Amino acid sequence: MHVLITGAAGMLGRKLSAAIARGGLPATRLTLADQLDPPAPAGIPVRKIVVPLTDRQAPQLLLADRPAVIFHLAAVVSAEAEAEFEKGYAVNLDATRALLDAIRRMSGYAPRLVFASSLAVFGPPFPDLVPDEFAPNPASSYGIQKLMAEALVNDHSRRGHLDGISLRLPTLCIRPGAANRAASGFFSAILREPLAGHPANLPVAESFRHYFASPRSAVDALLRAARLDTAALGQNRALVLPGLSATVHDLLEALRDRQGARALALISRNPDPAITAIVESWPGAYAATRARALGFTAETRASQLIDAYLEEDAPFLRR
Amino acid sequence: MHVLITGAAGMLGRKLSAAIARGGLPATRLTLADQLDPPAPAGIPVRKIVVPLTDRQAPQLLLADRPAVIFHLAAVVSAEAEAEFEKGYAVNLDATRALLDAIRRMSGYAPRLVFASSLAVFGPPFPDLVPDEFAPNPASSYGIQKLMAEALVNDHSRRGHLDGISLRLPTLCIRPGAANRAASGFFSAILREPLAGHPANLPVAESFRHYFASPRSAVDALLRAARLDTAALGQNRALVLPGLSATVHDLLEALRDRQGARALALISRNPDPAITAIVESWPGAYAATRARALGFTAETRASQLIDAYLEEDAPFLRR
Repeated sequence: MHVLITGAAGMLGRKLSAAIARGGLPATRLTLADQLDPPAPAGIPVRKIVVPLTDRQAPQLLLADRPAVIFHLAAVVSAEAEAEFEKGYAVNLDATRALLDAIRRMSGYAPRLVFASSLAVFGPPFPDLVPDEFAPNPASSYGIQKLMAEALVNDHSRRGHLDGISLRLPTLCIRPGAANRAASGFFSAILREPLAGHPANLPVAESFRHYFASPRSAVDALLRAARLDTAALGQNRALVLPGLSATVHDLLEALRDRQGARALALISRNPDPAITAIVESWPGAYAATRARALGFTAETRASQLIDAYLEEDAPFLRR
Repeated sequence: MHVLITGAAGMLGRKLSAAIARGGLPATRLTLADQLDPPAPAGIPVRKIVVPLTDRQAPQLLLADRPAVIFHLAAVVSAEAEAEFEKGYAVNLDATRALLDAIRRMSGYAPRLVFASSLAVFGPPFPDLVPDEFAPNPASSYGIQKLMAEALVNDHSRRGHLDGISLRLPTLCIRPGAANRAASGFFSAILREPLAGHPANLPVAESFRHYFASPRSAVDALLRAARLDTAALGQNRALVLPGLSATVHDLLEALRDRQGARALALISRNPDPAITAIVESWPGAYAATRARALGFTAETRASQLIDAYLEEDAPFLRR
């Protein structure tokens, strides 16, 4: 089985290619595509294609060997898509559409396509627990672009051009690497930085509730989606993924359990009204009924988010 | 006030331009755009632009005089969009997007834009009464394209590029003119043809329930949308319009009331499994709560659909 990953140099793409190389899928070869040089995992033949997905030739380069499974992860992230209107649409919508159209034009070819969508397709006002049937109403250009791409995946799947699934991913926590400036970045930072003995700032109230999954759960979900019997999905190929509904307080308690009070002392509390305003427009919990029934899972305790990080990304920090 | 109508040569476009010329909006001039020569109503200065909306120059031609209100009605209809994949996307998505992008690039310009969307954004399975919050899940490429265009209207409105409203129109009945081959065409034909003394065929059971509005109600809704205070819409600029939920039996009873048993005798009953299968996937009623609260209305009795047709389209048939 030949597997293609777009956005392969990103955090999720790197974890996914490593998981496939470890046997997460019965893959015989990997094609890794990104505008940056993606790291190649050991243990599987890898071809790299370093090209921006917006390049006119990108679809034919990526599809030349007819990959049986395509993970489409490449994206402009939400803050950037909001700041750069045309770039967001060019990557998140047009490049996705060009890829789907190129697949459509290839006769006798209908690959499994797993699209990394986002819970940003939803917008306020939210109920406390957002059901699968809640109507999307994005509050950002990023969410609009993801919703439009989901619609394309649905249409191409219905018409038999491909066999698609869109996964609406929870906020990934703990993200490895340096702190970024995304509004949601602090969720990872308040755990990751103290774990390494570094300070971090908490810009919102401890009572704030949000919806998380570890990067490892996200990779598991991508792999499951690649193998899923899509007949069970019906016409709506977009799935809200299970996640952990937890408060900031829950996260901090888990940190204390794992690392002691000294870790907590590294966290300063400087409320940021701008960040608070953004994250307060996000819901605290999704039902994810359909995905759970299909066997998708996520963490059920905040401590598991920490454990997944220590096991996958920072084994040297394990006590 | 300068008003632009795209798709001005279509049934709805012609009725809308006539209604504006009669004073339905405080318009001082009309620009009528279509790929076919649109008829110009009397009583108002009219400029015609005969160009396919997919023409690269179309947006700048249409927007040159900065119309304050834009009615965007031009579309490839549902059966054609299903049969011709690329044409449907080119007109219903790309031409709409090009128009919105051209507006975005004009500084100091944010017109009211009223977009004719469709209840085809929804797909089965349906509850008996579809609430406004029901999540769109189109069962056709046409529905996908309308949903994507609605998303663009929402994003451009949120960002202040324009002030948009999308109206999800019920099945229009009675459509004037010759019988067409749309799956929904028989709803109009079984009334329109007997009214003129011509035979018509009923391809579904009399118990079948559907959701209707007269073309006159649709025009009234477009005019109302042009004047609406959009602050009341919040972030979701798409409105399900009120309609009449009626069975085929209700329509036929209204025909008997207006024209007597002789009109009913002109209707043959040859069930068509293909048409039955299509229309059975459509719901019988929408709540349209938001639009009703904003003052949008439609017919409440089947006889009113007939009356609207006789008054607007076939006064010579009135008894």
